[in-house]
Amino acid sequence: MQVSLSGLWTPASTPFGADGSIDLKLLTAHGKRLLAEGSTGLAILGTTSEANSLTVDERRRVIDACVEAGIPAERLLPGTGSPALGDAVTLTRHAADLGCAGVLLLPPFYYKKVTDEGLFAFVARLIEKAGARPPRILLYHIPPIAVVGWSLELVGRLTEAFPGIVAGMKDSSGDLGHVVTMIDTFPGFAVFPGAEKHLLAGMRAGAVGCISASANVNASGISGLLNHWQEPDAERRQADANAIRDAVERGGLIPSIKAVLAARYRDDAWENLRPPLTPLDDDERRALLANPAIVELLEAAPA
Amino acid sequence: MQVSLSGLWTPASTPFGADGSIDLKLLTAHGKRLLAEGSTGLAILGTTSEANSLTVDERRRVIDACVEAGIPAERLLPGTGSPALGDAVTLTRHAADLGCAGVLLLPPFYYKKVTDEGLFAFVARLIEKAGARPPRILLYHIPPIAVVGWSLELVGRLTEAFPGIVAGMKDSSGDLGHVVTMIDTFPGFAVFPGAEKHLLAGMRAGAVGCISASANVNASGISGLLNHWQEPDAERRQADANAIRDAVERGGLIPSIKAVLAARYRDDAWENLRPPLTPLDDDERRALLANPAIVELLEAAPA
Repeated sequence: MQVSLSGLWTPASTPFGADGSIDLKLLTAHGKRLLAEGSTGLAILGTTSEANSLTVDERRRVIDACVEAGIPAERLLPGTGSPALGDAVTLTRHAADLGCAGVLLLPPFYYKKVTDEGLFAFVARLIEKAGARPPRILLYHIPPIAVVGWSLELVGRLTEAFPGIVAGMKDSSGDLGHVVTMIDTFPGFAVFPGAEKHLLAGMRAGAVGCISASANVNASGISGLLNHWQEPDAERRQADANAIRDAVERGGLIPSIKAVLAARYRDDAWENLRPPLTPLDDDERRALLANPAIVELLEAAPA
Repeated sequence: MQVSLSGLWTPASTPFGADGSIDLKLLTAHGKRLLAEGSTGLAILGTTSEANSLTVDERRRVIDACVEAGIPAERLLPGTGSPALGDAVTLTRHAADLGCAGVLLLPPFYYKKVTDEGLFAFVARLIEKAGARPPRILLYHIPPIAVVGWSLELVGRLTEAFPGIVAGMKDSSGDLGHVVTMIDTFPGFAVFPGAEKHLLAGMRAGAVGCISASANVNASGISGLLNHWQEPDAERRQADANAIRDAVERGGLIPSIKAVLAARYRDDAWENLRPPLTPLDDDERRALLANPAIVELLEAAPA
């Protein structure tokens, strides 16, 4: 039975050793903790995971390592997008073969101002080549970074052409209006706001859950909000989550999350990033770890 | 002896069969013709070549196929950039091992608003891992597509830290002022305007040559302009080249170039592109092939 595409899917950060290689042991331990803290599953190999800084082989190995460590494949939603269709096919087939819950698909993001027709062809060929049982695809819409996005019209074409396969969207536009438009326009389409800031408003509008970078440090708080969104304390839970989000957004989301993880796990390896990303400097780290929301977070959830 | 980084390096288009696979035979035949028509060398695996739509293995095979077909490695300037440092290392080492003239390096282009420090670290690690004799690197500056670019300050740091390795730039900013600033700021830095529109002005300012997509269809005209840029007919040659450039820019540069190559070589395979790029539609193709500059071009240089 397929896991429902709903709830909190945490885009697990990828830890690197001092030599830049992936620390798979730290990664899978972190993944298990995220599940224990209330994540429905892991949206591994996303933007926060620095997936596009990994080779295709490394991305395969991350998926394999999770499964080998005992994380059920149906709790994995790996990112499989690439500017090269061949790479997206390799990774999507691999995810399908393992029985992953689905895949998160970035549009091919090198060329800009591409046509919807060209993006449609990319997805159509991907599905055609993804094996006998293509996985469910969540379209990954993150124009602030990928620049190329999935337009409303294109989503309409894709959901019509591939019902049950093109199943939803991670909407990281940062625009609540866009989230609501997607929900209203495509009934049954699983829309996940790409940050918890819009979680409560999103759920009230018909979102199915959340896929948010900051769940790496606050899976417990965000899953609590999701489980209680119709209850009286929902606004307070939203405010608490926002305070943590604000803190990790200030000095750069990805390095800030890693700095908090380094503090939580008492392991400096978590501070390593692959270039072109860089760790926080000392002042930024000090300010982050002195932020009251982060102090409270680390006290409430020690290693 | 190393070939001088100057002259016309043509970013050879990559032909695909109907099934989307690379047609290496067509590719190497085209490459040889470009050399026969006056190209100093081939800047294979660039934007026009749809390199980011190829897997790393495919990119290696394109380099290998050129060498196996008898094109001297020192006439090759392959694009080896990637958002993943590991992929950039693999390709750069391969180019170095074969004795290529150098490599064209895109910045890692997934994350936006990255710091110069992060980009410096990317290049430094690439050079460190590129083998005992790292190849010359031309920085590939194409902000209209990659969005991420090489800033003036960063180029200064890189040329100072890696003299003789970070050797020049393909400047596809489309901004003559930027080309001139690069030339004036970094004496001895090999600056190639990324289109022939600014060739004459660029040469007068101290550019070393040109790396332009449209040389796929007009290597003869552009190399003629380069060889005669100080002669009385230079302005006329520039105007002639511009007319061809204007024609292929109108309906999308990459598909238009492929449509002209399909007409020249009488082989429809040249019309194939990998998604997300799409071929010209019938009206666009008709208009392009009826353009007087293209009619003249095809008459002057038949298959």
